[in-house]
Amino acid sequence: MSDTVTLTLQQAEQLSLDILTRNGFSDAHAAAITRSVLAAQRDECHSHGLYRILNCVETARLGAIDPRAEPEVIDQAPAVVRVNAHQGCSLLSLEQGLPLLVAKARTTGIALLGINNSFHFSALWPEVEALSAQGLVGIAMTPSHAFVAPAGGRKPLFGTNPIAFSWPRPGKTPYTFDFATSVVARGEIELHRRAGEKIPDHWAVDVDGNPTTSPEEALAGAMLTFGGYKGSALSTMIELLAGPLIGDLLGHETQAATAEGDSKPFHGELLIAIAPEVLLGDQAAQHLSHAERLFDGIIDQDARLPSQRRYAARERSLANGVTIPEALHFELKALL
Amino acid sequence: MSDTVTLTLQQAEQLSLDILTRNGFSDAHAAAITRSVLAAQRDECHSHGLYRILNCVETARLGAIDPRAEPEVIDQAPAVVRVNAHQGCSLLSLEQGLPLLVAKARTTGIALLGINNSFHFSALWPEVEALSAQGLVGIAMTPSHAFVAPAGGRKPLFGTNPIAFSWPRPGKTPYTFDFATSVVARGEIELHRRAGEKIPDHWAVDVDGNPTTSPEEALAGAMLTFGGYKGSALSTMIELLAGPLIGDLLGHETQAATAEGDSKPFHGELLIAIAPEVLLGDQAAQHLSHAERLFDGIIDQDARLPSQRRYAARERSLANGVTIPEALHFELKALL
Repeated sequence: MSDTVTLTLQQAEQLSLDILTRNGFSDAHAAAITRSVLAAQRDECHSHGLYRILNCVETARLGAIDPRAEPEVIDQAPAVVRVNAHQGCSLLSLEQGLPLLVAKARTTGIALLGINNSFHFSALWPEVEALSAQGLVGIAMTPSHAFVAPAGGRKPLFGTNPIAFSWPRPGKTPYTFDFATSVVARGEIELHRRAGEKIPDHWAVDVDGNPTTSPEEALAGAMLTFGGYKGSALSTMIELLAGPLIGDLLGHETQAATAEGDSKPFHGELLIAIAPEVLLGDQAAQHLSHAERLFDGIIDQDARLPSQRRYAARERSLANGVTIPEALHFELKALL
Repeated sequence: MSDTVTLTLQQAEQLSLDILTRNGFSDAHAAAITRSVLAAQRDECHSHGLYRILNCVETARLGAIDPRAEPEVIDQAPAVVRVNAHQGCSLLSLEQGLPLLVAKARTTGIALLGINNSFHFSALWPEVEALSAQGLVGIAMTPSHAFVAPAGGRKPLFGTNPIAFSWPRPGKTPYTFDFATSVVARGEIELHRRAGEKIPDHWAVDVDGNPTTSPEEALAGAMLTFGGYKGSALSTMIELLAGPLIGDLLGHETQAATAEGDSKPFHGELLIAIAPEVLLGDQAAQHLSHAERLFDGIIDQDARLPSQRRYAARERSLANGVTIPEALHFELKALL
């Protein structure tokens, strides 16, 4: 007996749309969320794929987000767009703000989009790839609930604070990375706990700030950033730029939705778009082509470009559809 | 017998100006270089202090840079300034481009400065602190000669590719970091070689791509980035943004000055300036004040903010002058 289910992309899309609209999401929100979830599922990023619909619906059922919020796009300055998500999911705000961000970057050369008061659960790579697909360089960052201690500390303060970057490669899949500034995802520690396995000693500290190999002590203590004090500095930068700079909360001020209703699952997100053709005029194509020498230099020594597994998965999914665990499919259908 | 010499800041400044002008640098270049070198020496960043004048003069004597180059400031787009350093030192280009960058950021919200064809040897923190001192958020990055392999590789490809960030803290020293994306500076490996000491096994790989604790094998092989594949991705981003995006070279295309004269010690530099008051209007002060909660959250758990040692050194130097090795003082005076 198979324990997986394969859906065509159309079936997966319809399932997502049906679940979201039956659970109170407006058609516009359902469509935006579905596009992001489908992109992740298509690329076999399971943690940001259909699985995330469970959390999204749960958060709406708890009353912690507004599934019909109407984003407000604000033309703040010649190179600045702000979108107030009004306690809705970030994805519709992003889609509504993106055209103005792109138009501004194509005029000014570099432009910034800040999304405020948004429930954010998606991967950042589809968002920067929406920019590189239009020939722009994209950078995105967002904080999240605080699980991570600063280097030298012992208490959760930073979110896992991911950063993503995408660079357009004409005629090829873009150069894209998207990583958390924590050493690993919190879920990795939970998986080790369930399996009764120790964790490497550079993942987390216990409540006294000492390195620990115990998942229980780690979950009671704090996760660490990647790369020691350098990763910690980078995480601080992300928290400042995607928080106070755009007038939004810090990671430790947010809180996941709970049944008690005292949650605050909202925070900001920052995107930066840069237009090579504005910086370089008619030499832009030549310099984008020149950048390929860097990628060649990586590949030629048998190192890897990031996202290649994802692009291979994309090919498979476009041909064969997406495969998810039967248990997840069952849980999803129960939301209909 | 003392092996150090203490100079007042005025004496150190005059020494630097005299050496540079006697070695062919224009008054404008000498003044700009001196300001950067003095700022570093004042903050006890010895590797970017008066010591760097030796390399700067040597590079000019080899004919590899133009000590009288006149920077050309180009108003490229509403949010883009470019400066062609014309094979001169980057510092005068930066000083001449900065006012336009600041003016643009205060109009558009975010702006970008690209410096091309520049000889770059300075720390990046004085450059981002020039922005935070004016109430702007500053980000800077630059490639350098290729010493660093991509994650999973074995050959030098990336520069040490530093990134710096400064955030204005009203009434306080700014939050500033400035770090190379290599694990350590190349000089650290050379120091271990001279001392006959092993290096940690995550600093570098040998020519076959295997981790090594031998400084000799490391220098023949390649240095590594900090933080594994995440640091490697970040280094790639820096090389793309401060290279092809602004129409300049990649790290592996540059070469330090040599007596053979086949050198190409020029590359690009990128600065981004963001104006909180444009993003946030009259709420800017409130949100900058809000950001202090993040710094409090770091300090309150006995973790450190970056740059604090530097700011303490600054206080000392402003009171007592700067102290350098007698041998360095002797070498510097020999250039007069």
